[in-house]
Order: sequence, then C-alpha cells, then structure tokens
Amino acid sequence: MNLRSVFPPMPTPFAGGDLDVSAIATNIERWMIAGLGGVVVLGTNGEAALLDDEESDRIVQAARPHVPRDRVLIAGVGRESTRGTIAAAARAASAGADAVLVRTPSFYRGQVPPAALAAHYTAVADASPVPVLLYNYPAFTGVTLSADLIKETSTDGAQFIDMAAAVPERFTILAGSAPGAYTGMCAGARGAILAIACVLPGLCLQLLALACAGRHAEALALQQRLTPVARAVTTGFGIAGLKGAMDLAGYRGGDPRPPLTPLAPDALDNIRTLLHAATH
Amino acid sequence: MNLRSVFPPMPTPFAGGDLDVSAIATNIERWMIAGLGGVVVLGTNGEAALLDDEESDRIVQAARPHVPRDRVLIAGVGRESTRGTIAAAARAASAGADAVLVRTPSFYRGQVPPAALAAHYTAVADASPVPVLLYNYPAFTGVTLSADLIKETSTDGAQFIDMAAAVPERFTILAGSAPGAYTGMCAGARGAILAIACVLPGLCLQLLALACAGRHAEALALQQRLTPVARAVTTGFGIAGLKGAMDLAGYRGGDPRPPLTPLAPDALDNIRTLLHAATH
Amino acid sequence: MNLRSVFPPMPTPFAGGDLDVSAIATNIERWMIAGLGGVVVLGTNGEAALLDDEESDRIVQAARPHVPRDRVLIAGVGRESTRGTIAAAARAASAGADAVLVRTPSFYRGQVPPAALAAHYTAVADASPVPVLLYNYPAFTGVTLSADLIKETSTDGAQFIDMAAAVPERFTILAGSAPGAYTGMCAGARGAILAIACVLPGLCLQLLALACAGRHAEALALQQRLTPVARAVTTGFGIAGLKGAMDLAGYRGGDPRPPLTPLAPDALDNIRTLLHAATH
Amino acid sequence: MNLRSVFPPMPTPFAGGDLDVSAIATNIERWMIAGLGGVVVLGTNGEAALLDDEESDRIVQAARPHVPRDRVLIAGVGRESTRGTIAAAARAASAGADAVLVRTPSFYRGQVPPAALAAHYTAVADASPVPVLLYNYPAFTGVTLSADLIKETSTDGAQFIDMAAAVPERFTILAGSAPGAYTGMCAGARGAILAIACVLPGLCLQLLALACAGRHAEALALQQRLTPVARAVTTGFGIAGLKGAMDLAGYRGGDPRPPLTPLAPDALDNIRTLLHAATH
Repeated sequence: MNLRSVFPPMPTPFAGGDLDVSAIATNIERWMIAGLGGVVVLGTNGEAALLDDEESDRIVQAARPHVPRDRVLIAGVGRESTRGTIAAAARAASAGADAVLVRTPSFYRGQVPPAALAAHYTAVADASPVPVLLYNYPAFTGVTLSADLIKETSTDGAQFIDMAAAVPERFTILAGSAPGAYTGMCAGARGAILAIACVLPGLCLQLLALACAGRHAEALALQQRLTPVARAVTTGFGIAGLKGAMDLAGYRGGDPRPPLTPLAPDALDNIRTLLHAATH
Repeated sequence: MNLRSVFPPMPTPFAGGDLDVSAIATNIERWMIAGLGGVVVLGTNGEAALLDDEESDRIVQAARPHVPRDRVLIAGVGRESTRGTIAAAARAASAGADAVLVRTPSFYRGQVPPAALAAHYTAVADASPVPVLLYNYPAFTGVTLSADLIKETSTDGAQFIDMAAAVPERFTILAGSAPGAYTGMCAGARGAILAIACVLPGLCLQLLALACAGRHAEALALQQRLTPVARAVTTGFGIAGLKGAMDLAGYRGGDPRPPLTPLAPDALDNIRTLLHAATH
Repeated sequence: MNLRSVFPPMPTPFAGGDLDVSAIATNIERWMIAGLGGVVVLGTNGEAALLDDEESDRIVQAARPHVPRDRVLIAGVGRESTRGTIAAAARAASAGADAVLVRTPSFYRGQVPPAALAAHYTAVADASPVPVLLYNYPAFTGVTLSADLIKETSTDGAQFIDMAAAVPERFTILAGSAPGAYTGMCAGARGAILAIACVLPGLCLQLLALACAGRHAEALALQQRLTPVARAVTTGFGIAGLKGAMDLAGYRGGDPRPPLTPLAPDALDNIRTLLHAATH
Repeated sequence: MNLRSVFPPMPTPFAGGDLDVSAIATNIERWMIAGLGGVVVLGTNGEAALLDDEESDRIVQAARPHVPRDRVLIAGVGRESTRGTIAAAARAASAGADAVLVRTPSFYRGQVPPAALAAHYTAVADASPVPVLLYNYPAFTGVTLSADLIKETSTDGAQFIDMAAAVPERFTILAGSAPGAYTGMCAGARGAILAIACVLPGLCLQLLALACAGRHAEALALQQRLTPVARAVTTGFGIAGLKGAMDLAGYRGGDPRPPLTPLAPDALDNIRTLLHAATH
C-alpha cells in the first residue's frame, strides 16, 4: 500500500439533501487522472458525523470502482465507542476500503485517559480486517495523541519531529494540514491528506515532489503560494468553502448538510480571488 | 407536563457489554418510589454517544412501563445533523418518550454560527411529535447557546439570570449541575436534572423544596453538604464514578462502555467516603 | 474595618496623559456622599498595570483625605514578584491605605504551583503593615486560587459556595462581578467590589441590602435590571467603557492610557441606552 | 547589526535575593567565547517581570563590557503601558543596549485590539534611540501578533511561513523556540533566541549552520537530539530548570526569585540525564 502521495479528503456531495452518488464518481475520476494517490472518504471534510451508517456504506461502495487497485481507498470509521468503531471498520472493509482512518473519540474526552485511548486504538487495529491509519486532528477532536501513537497531524513543526522520532521506521507520516505541509515534510512526513488537494491536486503533488527532492527554496515558495487558499477552504470557510472552491474548479461540490450552512456569496468571491492568486 | 421537579439522568446499565434491560427497570422503579419527577434517558450520563440507534430505541421502550403517566419520560435525541436529530426524535416519541432533550451539535462547532444553531433547534422543534427541551452543557459540547435559546445550564449564576430574563414566562428552567443548583434556583430555576439524583434522590428533592419555599439558609447548608459528592460523580470521576456511587447506594450501576474505563478501587473508596459525609 | 458594603474600584483619571489628582478627589467625594463603604484604588479597573510606582503612591495620597475614617481605603498592590508586592504594600500603607488587595501573579503562571502561590500570599500577609485582602479575578490573571485561599470572585455560584465553606468564619467574602452579585450574595458574599458601583452606587447598595434582608424576589429583579449595563462597563467595553459611563453619570472619567484605546462614539451611545434602561 | 546568529536569553543570577553582577560577567564571557552572536538580557527567561527598574538598568550596564562591539546586546523593555515601554527603551539604550526587544502587553489583552497593538509598537519604535525587535511569545503573553507585525515566534511551521511572506525583505526572523528551530529555519528564520543556547551554545550554532547550508538530514538529526533537553529547560521545568542546567554545564545559574520556586532534586536528575543524552 503506497501512502507516499497526496490524498484528497473527499467532501460528500448531496442532491436535494440525499447522497449524490454520481458526483462521487465524477470527482474521484478527475482526482485519479490528476495523479493523486487515492482518496479518503468519510473524513471530517466528508461530513462523516452528519451521515448515517447506511449512507456511509454506500459512499465506500460508490467510490470503490473509481479508485484503481494501485491507489488507496481510505475510509474514515472513527466512532465514539470502541465497539462502534470496530463495527464501522468491518463494514467499510467489506464495502471495499483498502484501509481505515480512525479519528480520536472526543465526546467524553475528559474521561478517556491516554491508556484508554491506546486500548481503543489497539482494539480497533486488532479487529480491523484492513490496516488502520491513526489520525490526529486537534482542532476538531480536542485531543492530541501522545507521540507514540500518532501518524498524522497539524502545523506544528516540533510535533512532527517528535512523531518522526517516536514511530517505528515502517510508519509513513502524512501531513494533515496544507499550511504546515512543507515544514511537515522537512520534519519527516512523506505524504499528505490535504483539503486543498480536492481543488488543486497538481500543485499539492508538486509540493510533495519538491520537498522530497530536497529542492527547498522552490518548495517553500510553492507553500507560500498555496497557503492562503488552503486556509480559506479549511479554517476560513470550512466545508462549505471547500465545496465552493471545488465548484469553482470544475468539480462537483454543492452545499453541506444542516446545521452546516451554505457558502455566502461574498465568501465565494473571496475564494475565487485566492484561487486565482494561487494559480496565476 | 410537570417539569418542576428533579430528574435523574439515567446511566445506561450494561451486562457483558450489552444492554441490561432488567437493571433499567429496577433503577427507575426505585427512583419513582423516591418521588423523582420522571427520568431522563439517553443523555450525556446515559453514554448516548456510545450507543447505536437500535439500542437507543430499546432503552426508551424499556423505561416506558416504569414511568407513571403523571411523571415525565425524557429522551436525549441530539445528533450532529439536523436530519439525524429529527429522525431520532421521531423514533424516541414512537418508543414512548413524553419529551425529547436536544443537546447542541458540537463536532463542527466552529462552522455552526448562532443563526444556524437556531435554525437547527427550530427545525427539530417543528418536526418533533413531542415537546423539545433545549439543553446546554458547555463542558461537553463546547458550545454555549445564547440566552434567547437556552433552557438549562451550568453553575454560573449570571448566566441563569440572563436565561430567566430571556425566555418566555411559560418556560421552566432546569438546573443542570448539582454544585450550582441552589444558586440556579435563586436565579429562577424551578427544577433540575442532576446526576447525583440517581444516587441521592431524596436530598435533591429536599434542596428544590427548600429553595422554592424561600428557606435559603437551610437550602444553602444542604447545597454545601451535597456539593462534594455531586462533584465526585460528575467532573471528578465521570460516568464510571456515577455508576460506582449507584452501586454503593443499592442501585445497579456497573461499568461504562469502552473507551470509558471502569472505576479504580481507590476512586470507589473516595466516593464511599464522600457519600457517607453527605448523608450522616 | 467594615467590609460589609459596596466598594467602587476607582478608574484612574488622566489629564494630558498625566494623573489628574483633582478628579480623584471629586469622584471619591461623590461616592462617599452616595454611601459607599470606601474605595478601591490601583485595582485592575484603576489601570494599575499601566502606572509607575511614583504615580501609584500619589494616587493613594490623593485619595486618603476624601475617605472618612469609618470607611475603608483599599489599595491594589499585587506585583509579579513577592519582593515587589511586599514593597508595594509597605508604600501603600505609608501613603494611607487601610488595607491592601493582592492580585495573583500571572506572568509566569505555569511556573507557580499552588504551594508557591500560598507562600507568596503568606509572605505578603506577614510583611504587610495593614490587612491583606485576597483577590481572585480569573479572566485577567488566568489563575484561580484554590478555595482555602480566596476571598473574592467571579459569577460562578458553585465557586462562591465552595469559598464560603472553606474560609474561616471571620472572613468577609466580597462579590467581584456585578452580573453574579445577587447569586454570590445568596451563596454567602456580604459585600462587593463592583465596577458599576462607580456609576450607580445607590442601586448597588440597594441590591446588597435587599439580598441581605432576604427580599429575594426584589433582589433578583434589581439584579436583572443592573446586569446589562454592568456588563457593558466591564466585559463589554472595558475600562474605556467604565470611564465613559462615569462621564455620562456626572463623574470624571476620561480616556484610558495607551495601549488602551478611547471609547468609540457608538459604544458611548450604547452605554447611554443601557444606563437609561437600568435607571428608568 | 548582525542578527544571523544564535542568542542566549540570559537568566538573571541572584545571590541572597539580590543581583549577582559577577555571575553576569562570567556567563556572558563564556557565551562569547563559544561564538554566540551576542546576548539577550531582561527577557522572559531573565525574570524581567520580577525585577524593578533600577535592577534592570544595572543588568544592562553589567552586561555591556562583556559583549564585543561586533556582537549584539539586546535588552527586553516591554511594559504594559506604551509610556512605560518607551521609558524603559530609553533607559536600556543609555545603559548600553544595541537593540531592544519588546514583548506584547498582555495584562489587558482583551482590551487591546490589533490596531492599538500596532500603534503601541509604532510609538515605541519611533521613540526608541536603538532598533526595536518585535517579539512573539504566545504561551506567556496570550497574544499572537498578526503576521504583518511579528519578527519572532513559536514552533508552528505555518506561522513562520506567514511571517516570512509578510515582513519586508530586510527583516531577520529569529526562531524563538528550540523544538521548532529547524522547521523555523526551513521556513525562513535566519537566527534564533534559544534558552538551551545558554547551556549548549555550540550545538545551537551547529544547528543553524547545518540548516542554512542546506544539510537538512543532519540538521533534522541534530534537532531531534536537542529537543528533549530544550523542552526540559523551558516548558518542562521553566526558568528554574534552565538555571539548573546552567549549573550542571559549568555556568552560574542558581535559584529564581519568588514566587518562582527552586528546582526539585529529582528534576535536576532528570535534566542531567537529558543533557547527557543530548551530548553523548
């Protein structure tokens, strides 16, 4: 399984409030043509927390035929309970996922000490029919995994270095935030899951290639070019912003599911300007 | 529907990892005999986030026969999506709930502005076959509703007063945290949902009665007596602590579901001491 | 020393960037006529952190002749070092302060464990020629004293009750935040230091009197009337807002010292409206 | 003025509670022999917040003769008021400082909007007789400067890149946290102010040299070696830890000033172990 690439965390497309399966196919086909290493479905950007189990299964099934066998179909399966996460991993695997990504349980975070979190991940890894990718997204889950557990992270250079020092050699560390992608790669990341890769897959692949080739000045310049629009589609305007940017770039984005709100027109203008600046 | 009473937020009992339906019956029977105003199932203390939909339905069904018609069976139905919350409210109502309690969506909190939150609650209230109780538990959800929406809250006296001033006359405000119950009642609360009421229902009813009767010195003294053990079964030792205290008091508590962890023996000793101090 | 009253935390008046000693006299004279129990100078609202030592001394000296001997002149003397705090307490006492108020050191808060904080307060209390009032203002200092040390606090009803239970009988607890004043008094406070008392001394004294007389419904109603404008002159518009409200009420407020900024005109209009609503 | 080097933020040595001027001389002499680019006095690690003005002046005067003219003597002069900061800058310059470092005012942070912060820095820069270095230390001051103002920062790679993109070409960005030094240098920093440079000046200079020479693999390996002990003398054991490490390395550290507490013996053992690991 080759994780040394860039993966887009697919937003879930809706039509009239229901899943839009054809849009899934269209978007993934384009990403594969652009050369991305596969796709992550049912992640945070996939509005996984807003979907029911049956919808989740259909999304994996809809994605599978469009991800070539030499690429990787990764499905988010994190739930609040260990039992629920194990069940979701089994369902995702049987629907065709190559690997599962397990976010940290967060609802009862004050009541889950580090040892319990380790037990959670271990139980899931033991039970899952496919490999488990660990996931660290502090802004959303409010829990930062300690360094001997994690496999992906934020923009903190020091944290990346800790992780690289702590994980076994065979681990691939994936950068999980575009603004910190280049420094993450300096610190040991060898791939990335980046929201902006849904919109600008080529530039993201180029950033990874430059950093891995030791062409630091070019990588830094490209990072500086990517950062403003990458922020707009994440911390700036959230999932609605990412979907709006996809619409602008010819993908099928659309609106998020309530209580998330559609993108305001001036936010779309703002994103259009940033997208233009990053690509011209 | 009489909400001017005290309600226990029922922890969900498990046996061998599965629901223990008989323990639900036993606990609720005792609480009704003790005079509590009904019961809240599927709340935060009910480990609702760790249960699947089918289990949630069975809990409401199991509780229904044991809650007399002049008391109130309240079911927590909050989900991250508006759609999911509406579906859960419909299922809870058809399983027998008299009212539903809707916690604030929290996973995408940065992406749900106040107007979207208001729209969420309005959509749920419009669709629900039974009355909707609003719910405000900042420590868990990370979102504090603005005063024109809320109906229950924390230990902050000023926030209670805001709420009392903001909601229509017909609203009943329920205190949601035992350490702030007395000051909440001073500020306008006329009932309460208190974890410690699962263990010490009589003292909680007495506190409400004293405060409502204007016997402030006695109410304050009782509050001071209740606070240490009330803290132990919430912020101190969490759901495992509440279940442990129930076991000590003759109820059926047991262990929580992973990744929550069983109570350590010294924590149980600690709770035993505090329980003794509050009742002797 | 009678602390069972309401005390205004005097803002420091400036003229052309320097101390305006005559404005100090004017304001204190009016507060004493209104019946307040004394005055607090050099507190957070007094911009103490923006003053040098020589200015601090002159403020205490300027205030002294205008505070009758049966009232209390309290001076804030908290510094980051124990040594500096002791020196400031000695200077304040020799300039005429009846008591000193010691805020929690905050700059190195991560490096001052509870025992070191206790040692700090003990050393200051041992060295001070006048009584030391403990002070707890978490929003500014970022440190919440544990219950066996504190003497004044926020809006949290539960925290007031803890404090009342923890401190020796002879302690007077002063409410330190107007929106939580009534619930604080329910929970055991017998006096208050309230920014809004600089503007509306009579209503603040009335609130204390009603609460202490057990006239809870009237106290609650008055609290609800005071809260909006009390918020505006603290969390809403800060020290500039408090000074602006004083100007509106006939006191001598003026502008704060940079980097604090003068009040914007629309903020002043907002405060005028709230002041009118609270008093009509 | 050559800032493209590593600077130690000198802890202030005390003897019997008073300044130890001879220890200042000894430490700076050794750092200059080790090749560091100068020294920063009166910074956060210098316990500046615990010193009075007269002591501050004496420290600059004591340092001056030991910093060669081709190195840089930098003095921290940040105060809470603009007026106080300007006065401190003038005093530091007349005592011999080559440049002043201005931390962000933090006590009233909620009341100082970005424009007021910019006005503060501009006023100080206009008035200062020597160049002003901007300073950004979010953990202590709680305020993060916006990118168009800052000149030094934390471990966040993305923030470094923002800064490098925002500041004029002539600015030198200094890394301010050892664990993020290497990624900061990847992102554009060309020098550093590092607490661990007080203890291990040679390794810090080597890290900067490797990163600037594009020898990334060696720089990353050295960073991984430095990080554990660098954390111990900052976030781990604070100023007492830094002083303890200096004592172990043959410098003159000693105890901090109360309310900071002396290093516990087991903490010293811990630091000794980490120091050994970093250097063997």
